[in-house]
Amino acid sequence: MLGVLGGMGPMATVDFLAKLVRATPAGRDQDHIPTLVCSAVDIPDRAAAILGTGPDPLPAMRAALARLEAGGATRIAIPCNTAHHWHAALQAGTGLPILHIVDAVAETLAETPAGFMAGTGTGGRIGLLATDGTLRAGLYRERLGRRGLACVGPDPEGQAAVAAAIRLVKAHRVAEARPLLEAQVRALAAAGCDRVVMACTEIPLALSGSAASGLLVDATEALARACVAACRDDADPLPRAA
Amino acid sequence: MLGVLGGMGPMATVDFLAKLVRATPAGRDQDHIPTLVCSAVDIPDRAAAILGTGPDPLPAMRAALARLEAGGATRIAIPCNTAHHWHAALQAGTGLPILHIVDAVAETLAETPAGFMAGTGTGGRIGLLATDGTLRAGLYRERLGRRGLACVGPDPEGQAAVAAAIRLVKAHRVAEARPLLEAQVRALAAAGCDRVVMACTEIPLALSGSAASGLLVDATEALARACVAACRDDADPLPRAA
Repeated sequence: MLGVLGGMGPMATVDFLAKLVRATPAGRDQDHIPTLVCSAVDIPDRAAAILGTGPDPLPAMRAALARLEAGGATRIAIPCNTAHHWHAALQAGTGLPILHIVDAVAETLAETPAGFMAGTGTGGRIGLLATDGTLRAGLYRERLGRRGLACVGPDPEGQAAVAAAIRLVKAHRVAEARPLLEAQVRALAAAGCDRVVMACTEIPLALSGSAASGLLVDATEALARACVAACRDDADPLPRAA
Repeated sequence: MLGVLGGMGPMATVDFLAKLVRATPAGRDQDHIPTLVCSAVDIPDRAAAILGTGPDPLPAMRAALARLEAGGATRIAIPCNTAHHWHAALQAGTGLPILHIVDAVAETLAETPAGFMAGTGTGGRIGLLATDGTLRAGLYRERLGRRGLACVGPDPEGQAAVAAAIRLVKAHRVAEARPLLEAQVRALAAAGCDRVVMACTEIPLALSGSAASGLLVDATEALARACVAACRDDADPLPRAA
């Protein structure tokens, strides 16, 4: 049973679950992945903690993980990019494998080689739309860097606009968030990025169906697809050599 | 923590969760309702069991409820109308209160008096779009009948179309389901119904934004609103007289 450590934010978790259902080949209820979701909305703000301006969210994340374990989860996904700053700490406290959202994005990027999507071939820099916390923690920069991919974020003014847009989405003000984010997608494209990762799970809620979508890589969707693949492997393990 | 006994079907549960988030007054993650969701897709088909053509889903529903209890849920909602045939049996096995979706619909109907929505005033018969199992079990007929409301379903040919549409939604074929359901809404309106309850949680997935929406009452939305009200009462109990 897939365990989803969610609620960061609640609608982003719903978006992840919808993408999980759509990514599953199914003709009836019983074909889908059994899932236990903890929408732990009491987890303190992740970005604020990384920036040193808010309390540590790790205890509340550990409590939610314990609920999922008690309920019978056997594999964990976390549909919040910033929360992956605590991935290693969470993984150290449980025997259940926790998927990593940046690895899922890396898989998606590998399927669509640099320069392919926009046809520009300008060197394959990866633009990031993310929280201040995700950028400060270097989550994508380090993990994609190991695969030879260079990441760039918006300039300081642009990043302030992204952070404001994320807050607007959390307050159900999606229509106001969208133009702020589209402007930063254009700025990243102008700076030589031929792919822009929506590296905060609030962002696809605002950019769904955007004209910029040819450039965009959806981390939420990537995590959903990785879950479907992992759970299919759980159900049908490959034959092993003796 | 709200426990959601879901997965019947998985996308209907996602739709319920989206309506729960939207129905909650919130400006940030921490304003939302902590929720634990079990998407127990292994629960056998509820309608088939009521019709005597499939296995009993009660043991699998009880197992999912036990997972929610183990995870710390304190109140239960079930976003599947047909599953409410087993509401009393499930309630008998747990100390946690289980909301009843038909009571939630009755509350919504009470807020919009008969004849108000369509302006016809033709006697306030309530049309039902539901599974064969929900109709056979008389879930709405009995529970709304106690409140003086008369329910009618489609004719046999029309009901076969509704059942086919529900199967199409479960197979991600929403565009094919929609005209089948719209035709039955029109037939129920012609038969004197001034409100038509979408009394299967798959149906709003197909009729969202339909031209018929002025007539429609969404049981999923009604349950979500009832959950928000119940959880608000949990958090802020009214002062009691000594």
